[in-house]
Amino acid sequence: MEKLILITNDDGIDAPGIKYLISFLKPLGRLVVVAPETGMSGMGHAVTIKNPLRINHVTDADGVARYTTSGTPADCVKLGINQVLKQRPDLIVSGINHGSNHSINVLYSGTMAAAIEGAMQNIPSAGFSMFNPNPSIDFSFMESYVREISMRLLTNGLPAGTCINVNFPDTDKPAGVKVCRQSIGYWNEEFDSRLDVHHEPYYWLKGDFIIPQVQEDTDENALQKGFISIVPVTIDLTANTALDATRKQFQGI
Amino acid sequence: MEKLILITNDDGIDAPGIKYLISFLKPLGRLVVVAPETGMSGMGHAVTIKNPLRINHVTDADGVARYTTSGTPADCVKLGINQVLKQRPDLIVSGINHGSNHSINVLYSGTMAAAIEGAMQNIPSAGFSMFNPNPSIDFSFMESYVREISMRLLTNGLPAGTCINVNFPDTDKPAGVKVCRQSIGYWNEEFDSRLDVHHEPYYWLKGDFIIPQVQEDTDENALQKGFISIVPVTIDLTANTALDATRKQFQGI
Repeated sequence: MEKLILITNDDGIDAPGIKYLISFLKPLGRLVVVAPETGMSGMGHAVTIKNPLRINHVTDADGVARYTTSGTPADCVKLGINQVLKQRPDLIVSGINHGSNHSINVLYSGTMAAAIEGAMQNIPSAGFSMFNPNPSIDFSFMESYVREISMRLLTNGLPAGTCINVNFPDTDKPAGVKVCRQSIGYWNEEFDSRLDVHHEPYYWLKGDFIIPQVQEDTDENALQKGFISIVPVTIDLTANTALDATRKQFQGI
Repeated sequence: MEKLILITNDDGIDAPGIKYLISFLKPLGRLVVVAPETGMSGMGHAVTIKNPLRINHVTDADGVARYTTSGTPADCVKLGINQVLKQRPDLIVSGINHGSNHSINVLYSGTMAAAIEGAMQNIPSAGFSMFNPNPSIDFSFMESYVREISMRLLTNGLPAGTCINVNFPDTDKPAGVKVCRQSIGYWNEEFDSRLDVHHEPYYWLKGDFIIPQVQEDTDENALQKGFISIVPVTIDLTANTALDATRKQFQGI
């Protein structure tokens, strides 16, 4: 039976990345695109609770139904399943994001929030991201990788409550694919402080992303060596290794 | 030396929950509040990248400096550390949220995003939430718990890259505190579809939260039994138990 694939992203329906993604996955089944109208970078797992949402049917050109919503990437998955498809898709693919979502950036990423939504519903789901944020890059070289990874997801699924976070290194000749752990890093923020025309201050978030210790089997290491990184991502945020220490710390309260 | 405590939330500076939190923590050190101007529920780990941010110094009444920002809870922590305090606090406390953030709701929660920001910076951090979302509930009974938990965080810290997710059950006589794992559930969404005055449809997100199997050592179980749940939360989303299977699934690409 023909597979049903829900496609979304966080850069919005007009981003080059999602157009590449659609063209790469077309041979795999029936695609339905439900993406944000505009860019939603940095939205994390935001959902729209206090405002109503809109859905706009854009086009069915080339046999691919395209819808936009006024919501976040997580909203797009919810609306996509519940109001557009009205059935569970066989696969959810999000991206291709213009910019990396490896390491702790998975937590800020709207691209990955969409895949995590899928994991919550136990639907095989993947987020794809390109390290280099330049939107004019030619993504053609990704085709065979994106298609093969997606095909394997359609065939074998994923363990319950997990999705995958796929990041492409900054090269058009990847050394291969590495399944690895998420590296631990942090943003060293600075904020650019400016004065508006009324002499009132405002602040632009900026910063450098820092990974103090690059460990062997992590996504950062894989990307540095020119590999495509695949991290299986869980919706269970329990710090299992910290459970015993935490029990001791709070006992007797 | 006097301890420096950064306080934030996702319900906004005027929410009753943050006022209780301030009063509970005042004996522990110097408090600085940096909270959203308005409610930011469901913002997840959103950060503001494409718009500038504003900071407003509201008051220093009762010796507690209060600032609002135009940003999300995660923005508040970043701005709080970098622009308001200009130093690392000894503790970050977020809440008290009007509504539960247990189970997978940790991923949608702005309250917990603030605590997770702290974990990324290796600053001891906690998010506190009340199961019952009714803002008129008297939170006084929480005082000894919130203060004791915060005091222990100040004394002993937390393992690197972790924070704690504290949820209060729907009773003013908790049975005690249980350190536990995050339960796994999902939202069964429905969307309320309506027509606007121009006969165009719009959609309100609604749904029921479902935990199919309530396991013994989880937050859901603790809350059901009237305990305060404490889950240590990690910033490492690697699905460790799925690593081997994922390696097999994508080998040879």
